[in-house]
Amino acid sequence: VKNTIFLLSCCFILNIHCINAQNSIKQWDRFEIVLKHNPTSNPFTNDSISAVFKNGDNCKKVRGFYDGYGTYKIRFMPDETGTWTYVTGSNRPDMDKKEGSFTCVSPSSENHGPVKVINQYHFGYSDGKPYYPFGTTVYSFIHQNDDQAAVAIAQLQKSPFNKLRFCVMPQFQDFARLDIEHFPFEQLNKPASIRKDTILWNFDCFNPGFFSNLERRIESLEKLGVEADIILFHPYDEHKWGFDNMSHETDILYLKYIVARLASYHNVWWSLANEYDFLKYKKAADWASYIKVVAQEDPYGHLCSIHNAKVYYENTNSALTHASIQNGDLVDGFGKAVILRDAYKKPVIYDEVCYEGDIKYRWGNLTAQEMTYRFWQGMIAGTYVGHGETYIGKDSVLHLIYGRQLRGQSPQRIKFLRTIVESTGPWEQVDHFWGVDNLAAAANGDYIIYFGKEKIKKWQFFISRDSKIPDGTKFEVEIIDTWNMTVTPVKGVFVTKLKDGRIVDVDNKSVKLPKKPYLALRLKKIK
Amino acid sequence: VKNTIFLLSCCFILNIHCINAQNSIKQWDRFEIVLKHNPTSNPFTNDSISAVFKNGDNCKKVRGFYDGYGTYKIRFMPDETGTWTYVTGSNRPDMDKKEGSFTCVSPSSENHGPVKVINQYHFGYSDGKPYYPFGTTVYSFIHQNDDQAAVAIAQLQKSPFNKLRFCVMPQFQDFARLDIEHFPFEQLNKPASIRKDTILWNFDCFNPGFFSNLERRIESLEKLGVEADIILFHPYDEHKWGFDNMSHETDILYLKYIVARLASYHNVWWSLANEYDFLKYKKAADWASYIKVVAQEDPYGHLCSIHNAKVYYENTNSALTHASIQNGDLVDGFGKAVILRDAYKKPVIYDEVCYEGDIKYRWGNLTAQEMTYRFWQGMIAGTYVGHGETYIGKDSVLHLIYGRQLRGQSPQRIKFLRTIVESTGPWEQVDHFWGVDNLAAAANGDYIIYFGKEKIKKWQFFISRDSKIPDGTKFEVEIIDTWNMTVTPVKGVFVTKLKDGRIVDVDNKSVKLPKKPYLALRLKKIK
Repeated sequence: VKNTIFLLSCCFILNIHCINAQNSIKQWDRFEIVLKHNPTSNPFTNDSISAVFKNGDNCKKVRGFYDGYGTYKIRFMPDETGTWTYVTGSNRPDMDKKEGSFTCVSPSSENHGPVKVINQYHFGYSDGKPYYPFGTTVYSFIHQNDDQAAVAIAQLQKSPFNKLRFCVMPQFQDFARLDIEHFPFEQLNKPASIRKDTILWNFDCFNPGFFSNLERRIESLEKLGVEADIILFHPYDEHKWGFDNMSHETDILYLKYIVARLASYHNVWWSLANEYDFLKYKKAADWASYIKVVAQEDPYGHLCSIHNAKVYYENTNSALTHASIQNGDLVDGFGKAVILRDAYKKPVIYDEVCYEGDIKYRWGNLTAQEMTYRFWQGMIAGTYVGHGETYIGKDSVLHLIYGRQLRGQSPQRIKFLRTIVESTGPWEQVDHFWGVDNLAAAANGDYIIYFGKEKIKKWQFFISRDSKIPDGTKFEVEIIDTWNMTVTPVKGVFVTKLKDGRIVDVDNKSVKLPKKPYLALRLKKIK
Repeated sequence: VKNTIFLLSCCFILNIHCINAQNSIKQWDRFEIVLKHNPTSNPFTNDSISAVFKNGDNCKKVRGFYDGYGTYKIRFMPDETGTWTYVTGSNRPDMDKKEGSFTCVSPSSENHGPVKVINQYHFGYSDGKPYYPFGTTVYSFIHQNDDQAAVAIAQLQKSPFNKLRFCVMPQFQDFARLDIEHFPFEQLNKPASIRKDTILWNFDCFNPGFFSNLERRIESLEKLGVEADIILFHPYDEHKWGFDNMSHETDILYLKYIVARLASYHNVWWSLANEYDFLKYKKAADWASYIKVVAQEDPYGHLCSIHNAKVYYENTNSALTHASIQNGDLVDGFGKAVILRDAYKKPVIYDEVCYEGDIKYRWGNLTAQEMTYRFWQGMIAGTYVGHGETYIGKDSVLHLIYGRQLRGQSPQRIKFLRTIVESTGPWEQVDHFWGVDNLAAAANGDYIIYFGKEKIKKWQFFISRDSKIPDGTKFEVEIIDTWNMTVTPVKGVFVTKLKDGRIVDVDNKSVKLPKKPYLALRLKKIK
């Protein structure tokens, strides 16, 4: 029974050993070398294929992969324009030392390249365009058919979200359906009951169909300008599929295979795990080596993180580009979100802060107000927050799992916040020390003050002296109602003066507020 | 002018090369080998001296040091009873391969051995006795004369403090006097004005008198049962003395010398720096190597940390036993103190949270209420807090600098807290995730709820379900007034029941409270 996939896949092999590849591609698009070879043993474990790409001093080694049917592929994402030459390497002579070249031209206007960390705590596309992560989660995005996925994609297109967390491995848990079309490994039996019986896998043979389906989903996100935050391992298996408890060798084989297939997609982020500490079969040394493998195999340095349940991962690990945190409490109240950022000294995305919804679990019944509040709390701390939705609906198809209908009221408020941040540049909490933790400085010189759940009637003009604003700086003030999504300019101009260790208005002016929760102020610097 | 100290110190050299050492000492006391040798060049840089101590499989290599006057010393703190043998090593043949042995007997009743980390987040003496750090800071403790120091020691003895942070290097800043008796290095000139002129040092020659004075101060703390949290570098120099800007080689020489002298004192902790990030001449690589040197040179693994100003050090560094944090904001309000503990996964001591006092600086004018509040905030988060006092008084002699008169009202409240913790064992914040951040579980099964500044009339019995208390557990309740230092038992017995995801009293009982700030409850488990 073993190795049926690669044997089956051999039936259409051509007798010629050819290279198919493009002559010209755009920067950050995908260049692909296709090679044909008749495998004589398991190609996934026994055939190695790679290529070295060169453009001046820029040199990258890329692993290829077996794609079934006697087809081997090497994919490459050029990060510079110009002429790239390449030469293949393989333990199979007919695929070894194949040379070629192609021209890389300027990127398309839609492709800004991979997202990178900028200014230590924030993100931007490779071409310099700012990127502010406003993510949501749809765990089983790829574990549904094309029609269903099309609905999810249409919802995403209407939403403010520009990052999607989803799992590679199928789920086996509440709310997840088990009629799964594609599995990542060759299936060795067809049990009568998926729920009761055990499915046996040949962990030495990947199922290329599973991965090409995954790739089509990543491409659909690419078209929307959405980053694919790909969860490589998760604990939602109950040891049913067994993908949470593969051998260390299989895990490594899988990571090398998936990085070889996906690293050339510019919108890919690696999320080593969701709730890594709930994967009870894996030890600290496993995660350390998996992070290392992904970093080593990925020639482009895609963003890379690992998401926790109860125990934060050692996010100071230098191969992790940012901290992906689950903890709703850290964005529920002032002054907490910034602390992990100060400890890890890298960007923090609170990827899971509980979900807007109405299910019985305490992680899935935030109000829209509360979800919106948590986004603002994260933002004023110079961190980012992720959304998820768990309204049960009539069909029990949670957005969190399949991403179809968005029922919640927070997405439009998140869009409103995103619009503001896009107009100011990234925010930084001004004071990490003296208790003024509702004040952010925006990159454009504006200041944002968020009042959260406080209902106040009057705001006496005051900015923490840690802002170091010089005397005589002029501001206009806007009242932002973060829930009702209104912006109301305040009459007059405020002029700063340092007095008794506080930056105040020279005339001691104040701002009247409507005594409602969820208000913010934008102090617009007059240039 | 160079090397005058070691030349001077040679004048009393005996013509015999003898070893003086004890035959028997108590565990964790100090064994000392004294060797005589006539140095022919700078003994601090050119003579090496060490010894290997063995007791069965227990083997430790210890560096010795030159103590002036042709005297070399090797100090050793035996951590096990039994017979220890030793052999010296030196690049000077007359001090090389000297052998001996001594008996180590049971420790004295006052000596519990060095403090170690226990249960990942807490501390205990080596003999198993619990230790809860309640520290204060007296920067210039050693930079005053014996009579002045005796006053400081008498104050400390009356206080609740069992750890003292102090600097090795003298200070040059507000509130610090400049009539300093001992300096760590050989002084090469005597300028007319200490304030205006530059003192020149021979950084290749230590001043043994400075260090023996330091040792007497450490011994005085030892007698009180106070741990010596020794600050090895600090930025309060203004480049006046130059001890903040010695060469990398001098820094290393100094660290090796001081560790050789002091590591055998059981009450020593290493604090690499106060406000390390304000030492503008030192780079990240310097600190990494200094931490490494201290860890390598200290054969006993004394507690070791580094204290920050604005930028936390990488406290995940495995040679750092705990995080020594300056940030008052993290113990001002609920739910913050625990976050760094969760990030660093080691004990956190908030060694600097601003000071009780009345000086103009914002770091030095906390009320006693606020200081006490910060201690409680740290404690319920399973962390520890440090005290400091900055009442200016008539003489401008701050307790923070010289440790003489304690004028504040927080120390007795800190003593009250210490008594409670000593009766319950260490505390752990129960819930790190769901917003119930005023509840701590004590090691003895009791629970503590702290209300901080809230003034409430009634507490409806409720414990977070994360406590996992089984149904039917019985508690008596005490109302603790943390400011007035009273404990008032509440009538009746409370019996737990999990209901709707909350642990409540079976009869839905509540506790009347006097609507004052700074109250806490102790739920005493009935066994």
